[in-house]
Amino acid sequence: MTTYIFGHQNPDTDAICSAIIMADFEQQHGNKEAKAFRIGELGPETQYALDYFNVEVPELLTDDLTGKDVILVDHNEFQQSAKTIEKAKIHHVIDHHRISNFQTAGPLYYRAEPVGCTATILYKMYNERNYEIRPQIAGLMVSAIVSDSLLFKSPTCTEQDVNAAKALAKIADVNLEEYGLNMLKAGASTTNKTEDSILNTDAKSFSMGEHTVRIAQVNTVDIDEVIARQEALENAMNKASAENGYDIFVLVITDILNSNSKIIVVGAEKDKVGEAFNTALDNNTAFLPGVVSRKKQIVPPITEALS
Amino acid sequence: MTTYIFGHQNPDTDAICSAIIMADFEQQHGNKEAKAFRIGELGPETQYALDYFNVEVPELLTDDLTGKDVILVDHNEFQQSAKTIEKAKIHHVIDHHRISNFQTAGPLYYRAEPVGCTATILYKMYNERNYEIRPQIAGLMVSAIVSDSLLFKSPTCTEQDVNAAKALAKIADVNLEEYGLNMLKAGASTTNKTEDSILNTDAKSFSMGEHTVRIAQVNTVDIDEVIARQEALENAMNKASAENGYDIFVLVITDILNSNSKIIVVGAEKDKVGEAFNTALDNNTAFLPGVVSRKKQIVPPITEALS
Repeated sequence: MTTYIFGHQNPDTDAICSAIIMADFEQQHGNKEAKAFRIGELGPETQYALDYFNVEVPELLTDDLTGKDVILVDHNEFQQSAKTIEKAKIHHVIDHHRISNFQTAGPLYYRAEPVGCTATILYKMYNERNYEIRPQIAGLMVSAIVSDSLLFKSPTCTEQDVNAAKALAKIADVNLEEYGLNMLKAGASTTNKTEDSILNTDAKSFSMGEHTVRIAQVNTVDIDEVIARQEALENAMNKASAENGYDIFVLVITDILNSNSKIIVVGAEKDKVGEAFNTALDNNTAFLPGVVSRKKQIVPPITEALS
Repeated sequence: MTTYIFGHQNPDTDAICSAIIMADFEQQHGNKEAKAFRIGELGPETQYALDYFNVEVPELLTDDLTGKDVILVDHNEFQQSAKTIEKAKIHHVIDHHRISNFQTAGPLYYRAEPVGCTATILYKMYNERNYEIRPQIAGLMVSAIVSDSLLFKSPTCTEQDVNAAKALAKIADVNLEEYGLNMLKAGASTTNKTEDSILNTDAKSFSMGEHTVRIAQVNTVDIDEVIARQEALENAMNKASAENGYDIFVLVITDILNSNSKIIVVGAEKDKVGEAFNTALDNNTAFLPGVVSRKKQIVPPITEALS
């Protein structure tokens, strides 16, 4: 009986790496049937990390999960998870997000902590049990922490994340700053990305009041490179909204070098997203200085503005 | 800024004791504003435990929790919690139940484990941090574990609960079997209880499919003593259902000495509750041999029968 371990849809580096790490943790814990999966395509940043540490890409999950044993990492909201998640038997969740649209029929293990990265919680779990952290696993943990914290610049980043990354970089034998920046840059070039890729690589849906809000985020080293394609992006956002019932679609374009973002917003009530940030949209866009975290700086104000 | 710590409505011994224990834990953790509350009246079993270990009854929670800092113990479902819980800032949850009808706006600490008692998880948390477990706190932990596990007879009871209780009994300086049986008996006499007390002392509401199901449990050493009052109990159950919108009301009468239960069921779809246990109701009742745990043996089959 396989235990299916996976992160959220449109997986980022934490979602992929934490699944692989948790499968290793479960193996050490005696669960020999634990196996990491992914429920979406890898972005170039994650591919860079797996290539660097010579780790295989997890298998794409295609099985129906009805009655199956499941461990969720880096998410809990069912609309961000596998399609058949509601019928699975969820044994364990390791996550660092809010809890919403999640329920189980019976008791389970659930470990959430408000740190910057799921891999940081996993690092603590290994240490609590004195499990071995192999260099490859340490490298994946470093990659996840660097990714979620934008090399420690994100306001979601905690002291625990920084300390974990520093300790893990030694085990993985990498220079933290150098490796981290190279990995982020590998994921930040948008010139070769299609509009669909920009909108789907790191996108999540949220229930906010009566609204379904889609929030995609793309990292870049040049915001204008993305804004130059605004018309094509808006067309794709409107099309996706019509097809999937999003009331509002927000694209967050984040400058990872300077730690600012610009948003593009479509949807009937788009102006409320501007209001959420005490500004007015200009040609459907707004510049948000210092904003880099969807979880901490984007979702809460929009949730409040729409409730 | 007080941190409000409390268990579920109609508090049982684990709900009351775990709130007091978690407040002590938070104090040791440096949160000097942590304070235990209760959101309902104590039953005689819990009163016996607090009296025995000379611990004060927590204050009844009457404050509006809007914007307040909150820690939940022994529950998470909002309909089992304080009325204003949805507007509170939930920082931490320690629980051993399924997760349902629970959500937060932001990340939080959440620690759930499928053990028999919340106090067992708290015991682990103290040990992980090498916090001092004073004899009074150990006594409350023992009381909660004995109560939830019916002196280790419940199928929800795990090896961890048994080992914790044994270690804690030494710190609390009590004979586990003797103290445990006396405490359970203190809560098990129904002759002096009103119908309302029988139906409310340990009752929870559950959303199951489209139905709201109320499940009350009363411990006894003589099931017939309760069944003798069936007519008056059914009248009170029907009245409560009409007033509160319960579609089904189940009273579970549990013989703590022999580890069996009899249920009384009212509501339009009461027969489905019989079907859940592969039996037919006889005069609205059914005998369930070996069934003592609401969480593990009552809620899951009824949930399945109604979905």
